[in-house]
Amino acid sequence: MTARPANADQARLLRLLRDQGPQSRAQLGDQVELSRSKLAVEVDRLLQTGLAVPDGLAASRGGRRSHNLRLAPSLRFLGIDIGATSVDVAVTNPELEVLGHLTQPMDVREGPVAVFEQVLAMAAKLRDSGVAEQFDGAGVGIPGPVRFPEGVPVAPPIMPGWDGFPVREAMSQELGCPVLVDNDVNLMALGEQHAGVARSVRDFLFVKIGTGIGCGIVVNGEVYRGVTGSAGDIGHVQVVPEGLVCACGSRGCLEAYFGGGALARDALAVATSGESPGLAARLAEQGRLEASDVAAAAAGGDSVSIGLIRQGGSRTGQVIAGLVSFFNPGLVVIGGGLTGLGHTLLASIRSQVYRQSLPLATGNLPIALSELGPLAGAVGATRLISDHIFSPA
Amino acid sequence: MTARPANADQARLLRLLRDQGPQSRAQLGDQVELSRSKLAVEVDRLLQTGLAVPDGLAASRGGRRSHNLRLAPSLRFLGIDIGATSVDVAVTNPELEVLGHLTQPMDVREGPVAVFEQVLAMAAKLRDSGVAEQFDGAGVGIPGPVRFPEGVPVAPPIMPGWDGFPVREAMSQELGCPVLVDNDVNLMALGEQHAGVARSVRDFLFVKIGTGIGCGIVVNGEVYRGVTGSAGDIGHVQVVPEGLVCACGSRGCLEAYFGGGALARDALAVATSGESPGLAARLAEQGRLEASDVAAAAAGGDSVSIGLIRQGGSRTGQVIAGLVSFFNPGLVVIGGGLTGLGHTLLASIRSQVYRQSLPLATGNLPIALSELGPLAGAVGATRLISDHIFSPA
Repeated sequence: MTARPANADQARLLRLLRDQGPQSRAQLGDQVELSRSKLAVEVDRLLQTGLAVPDGLAASRGGRRSHNLRLAPSLRFLGIDIGATSVDVAVTNPELEVLGHLTQPMDVREGPVAVFEQVLAMAAKLRDSGVAEQFDGAGVGIPGPVRFPEGVPVAPPIMPGWDGFPVREAMSQELGCPVLVDNDVNLMALGEQHAGVARSVRDFLFVKIGTGIGCGIVVNGEVYRGVTGSAGDIGHVQVVPEGLVCACGSRGCLEAYFGGGALARDALAVATSGESPGLAARLAEQGRLEASDVAAAAAGGDSVSIGLIRQGGSRTGQVIAGLVSFFNPGLVVIGGGLTGLGHTLLASIRSQVYRQSLPLATGNLPIALSELGPLAGAVGATRLISDHIFSPA
Repeated sequence: MTARPANADQARLLRLLRDQGPQSRAQLGDQVELSRSKLAVEVDRLLQTGLAVPDGLAASRGGRRSHNLRLAPSLRFLGIDIGATSVDVAVTNPELEVLGHLTQPMDVREGPVAVFEQVLAMAAKLRDSGVAEQFDGAGVGIPGPVRFPEGVPVAPPIMPGWDGFPVREAMSQELGCPVLVDNDVNLMALGEQHAGVARSVRDFLFVKIGTGIGCGIVVNGEVYRGVTGSAGDIGHVQVVPEGLVCACGSRGCLEAYFGGGALARDALAVATSGESPGLAARLAEQGRLEASDVAAAAAGGDSVSIGLIRQGGSRTGQVIAGLVSFFNPGLVVIGGGLTGLGHTLLASIRSQVYRQSLPLATGNLPIALSELGPLAGAVGATRLISDHIFSPA
């Protein structure tokens, strides 16, 4: 069992070492409001826990040279990002740098038992590759609402068999370390905040466009989850009154028009009707079509495919425009599997938002693609669990 | 100049006395994590500032009886709520109970100089009525975005002459006390949180339906203002793609369909066309029609007027449904001038939200009318400034 810091000051020091790497006591002292003697006491106690260790002599600032400090180099965090159709597992060092990463196709509808068997095998494979001897904590993201304190999925619409499954408890038992579970989009937002495009942004939105569409909300540097853990569920915001029937039973939802599922459906339609010769050829060859085929066809100049992406981006932008007026964020990050659609998608989202939101809310608003891409969720998962480990027990 | 508490512990004690009224040292001690001796020290220092005073003997809890404590009874806060077409001014005691309240019609488009002249006259009238000898702080709400730290309106769309006007500084000079300025909807949310339907709710939305439509956002007990102070500006969220042209220049905004302005316009149309005999009669009598005429005609059984209210409620509900899916609040409060439209309005908002938002987000979600009504903004303004006065200088 990994030790935990004894108080908020020690927790603060650990997080500084995580986010800024090894440094001297003097450098730490500049950033925390502690007297010199109190700082010395807390640092000594941290060294006793084994969470932090000495690390060579610090550069002189006049006076006696002291040791640098760093987090115990053997600490390992595990980040698990379960999507609808794939899973990413990553191992990081204590500074949350990725030491190993595996990604595999997976169907979340097979239920938690089958999925966790696969996830545990991936974790074991990473451990056996030599990047980790043990795991000191793991974060798990799942593509549905989560009752965060208990780490249990709640009524996840695309995940039969998961409702109420004790993910946190089960994984903690299997892995033998503390585990936290969150909605995957929240973790992607945390990942971008830790090491991506949202570094140093306090209030932002992370919009995931994958099989479904969801939104992570960061307020004052913290993930906002809503009163029942379903905040950010924008896939079922209505974009067309009395529009297409959605899988959720309502009409005109965003996900009825865009996201991996809707795009595959539309691709099949334009391939079968002959409107898109590019997609028709792919359909004939593969016997099926996925969202990635639309990306490939668009890249090959298929105008109908480009049109589908633009239309989807425009619908998504319509929803984001409303959120921007409502939330007045400092940044909007676009991520998730469909970002393979690239700049055509980004351009149509941007054009819709800048046209439709209030100028005061968009004045200095960047809308940017995720920097971490497929790693955002797994890195965010290690950030979540390290925040927990680096807080008082 | 009113004294200020010296530290966070004293600030905490003052707010407890404000929110819970007079009480004993022992009762205070039960609620703050201070040793008995430290509590005694901080209470004595508070008594020295004059912000708190002794107030009779406390009930015995076995042992020596101590004095009750209360806030200095002479403290007075001023709450000013400037709407588009009216202004409310209220004076409260230190527990934020309203001792006097004036409301007058006013046109915000006359500009800050004329408006403040009127507001100062109202404040003087309240003082002369004997409820206050002085003002120890004032909160001011205005119907547009505010750069909160400076207390300056930013590009307010319906307020010519206000952009960049130093409201905070000017009012502070005139009143001779500290002043804070905020968007009116944020203050209404604070008012409901302090003394209305949102007591003890940490995450909620306050939707104001008046001349315009706006939303106050409370996250974890604090007002969320967005990065440029325009958060909650939902009046210009698109409800009809390529719909009616709005005063803001965009098409299909919520305010182009509902709110005091749109309702008066629609009332005139159905009166002139003869569709609504009730409104036609009122138009002939008064020579003009306002939103309140629609309320009166509806109350008198005019089915066309009822239809207008239902339609407007349904458009508003469409926007709120999206916000509920996104924000997953614990409560939605409906307030502002048009709540005179009453339960017909509330019913159509509710029906739209419950039909269109995710069940997980609406499961335990109450949608309720404001309890404080026209006083919400002014009470919220005194809450804002008292939070400031009751915090370390």
